[in-house]
Amino acid sequence: MTTLDIDPTWCVGTKAHGGYLLSSIVGPALDEAHPHPMAVSAHYLSSPDAGSAELEIERVRTGRRVASSRLRLAQNGKPCVEVLLTAGKYDADAEPYWTTGEAPVLPPVEDCLRAEARRRDGVTVGFLNHVDMRMDPETVGYATGSPHGKAMNQAWLRRDDGGDPTLLDLLIFADSLPPVTFDLGLIGWVPTVELTVLVRGLPAPGWCRAVQRARLLQDGWLDEECEVWDSAGRLVVQARQLAGYRLD
Amino acid sequence: MTTLDIDPTWCVGTKAHGGYLLSSIVGPALDEAHPHPMAVSAHYLSSPDAGSAELEIERVRTGRRVASSRLRLAQNGKPCVEVLLTAGKYDADAEPYWTTGEAPVLPPVEDCLRAEARRRDGVTVGFLNHVDMRMDPETVGYATGSPHGKAMNQAWLRRDDGGDPTLLDLLIFADSLPPVTFDLGLIGWVPTVELTVLVRGLPAPGWCRAVQRARLLQDGWLDEECEVWDSAGRLVVQARQLAGYRLD
Repeated sequence: MTTLDIDPTWCVGTKAHGGYLLSSIVGPALDEAHPHPMAVSAHYLSSPDAGSAELEIERVRTGRRVASSRLRLAQNGKPCVEVLLTAGKYDADAEPYWTTGEAPVLPPVEDCLRAEARRRDGVTVGFLNHVDMRMDPETVGYATGSPHGKAMNQAWLRRDDGGDPTLLDLLIFADSLPPVTFDLGLIGWVPTVELTVLVRGLPAPGWCRAVQRARLLQDGWLDEECEVWDSAGRLVVQARQLAGYRLD
Repeated sequence: MTTLDIDPTWCVGTKAHGGYLLSSIVGPALDEAHPHPMAVSAHYLSSPDAGSAELEIERVRTGRRVASSRLRLAQNGKPCVEVLLTAGKYDADAEPYWTTGEAPVLPPVEDCLRAEARRRDGVTVGFLNHVDMRMDPETVGYATGSPHGKAMNQAWLRRDDGGDPTLLDLLIFADSLPPVTFDLGLIGWVPTVELTVLVRGLPAPGWCRAVQRARLLQDGWLDEECEVWDSAGRLVVQARQLAGYRLD
């Protein structure tokens, strides 16, 4: 059992950001032979507060190419996040053998809107102190009462300290964009139940681009699909979550 | 600890089918208040053989809307599959609040090709005794040396006994289509490392349609995205796996 210290500057209100949690849980489970998270599946049970939490790491299998672990975060004995991790080692020079799809097209960074950590309702969205996220203006119409109604948004992302993205940063970026429900005019809390992130390769230095979409809102549940592309135009993350929404 | 008896008639060669395993692992973890698997994340460590295996079920949290469990399948003490499950209860009459995308367009069932359990190389693909899968002829060109090169395939699916699909059947269907690598002319084993299935609602009676696609083959790894649509044209499954491929 390891102690994880949840940094209050990453919290949204009093609760830890989901992507920050994922990154913090996965980091200690990596090793020299398996330094790269490849597939990370998280089921979120309850949101821990800033402060001390208990991280349990169990290496289940160490194979030739990949190692798999079960990870559990609890706070004061209450389970918060359950994670399965498969990690391995990517070749930094790998080229796509076959691919489809295109990187999202965004206005230049300087024409996009930085997402502010201080919301107008006074809540601090702490992770935005650490993540410099520049939203495509067309996809944040909800902020001025004109959502564009496509259940889609997109943004440029980088570390606020200007550093190049790491694979653990990608786990954060995969859960950074606002809920796509906002783009449908539904301004309510969208709690993540499950989030799986496939990290597909090592990101090039510089700004990443992310695009997030939903396919189906039904019965109080929606999917949110997030792709992250690096500055070289490579797909580096495929993530999908199941989250709740409310109409009232 | 429960004993799971892996049925040899579901095996591919001597190894249990991944979707059958998932369905068999998840079934015993459901209860009356949470009868529907909503999000299932599986990391496959080693393939069990037919026969007896040990299933460990741990309910981690029981909430108002959902219950979450950790599930582990092992055989002779060797870990085989690690699963996280979030289950709840869907409204059978739920209508989409918002949706995008279209059900795959396939030729009529009678013009599609039934996938045979007995392969030409003599291996038995046992699950095809239980799943009646009719492939779109255009997407099985690889069988006659003419793959169509789109990393895509699609099929009609139902239970071989003619019964209506259950939610557990959907977990099987989500892992039933041939590897999309075949459609690129890569005829090799494609072991699943991780598979997450979102079940989005209760399927209507009758044939389901499934479509499977890849976005990126790189560095020996590919994603396979599988959508399953029910006979009423509703999206009922969104699944994605990370799997390995070899060029030789």
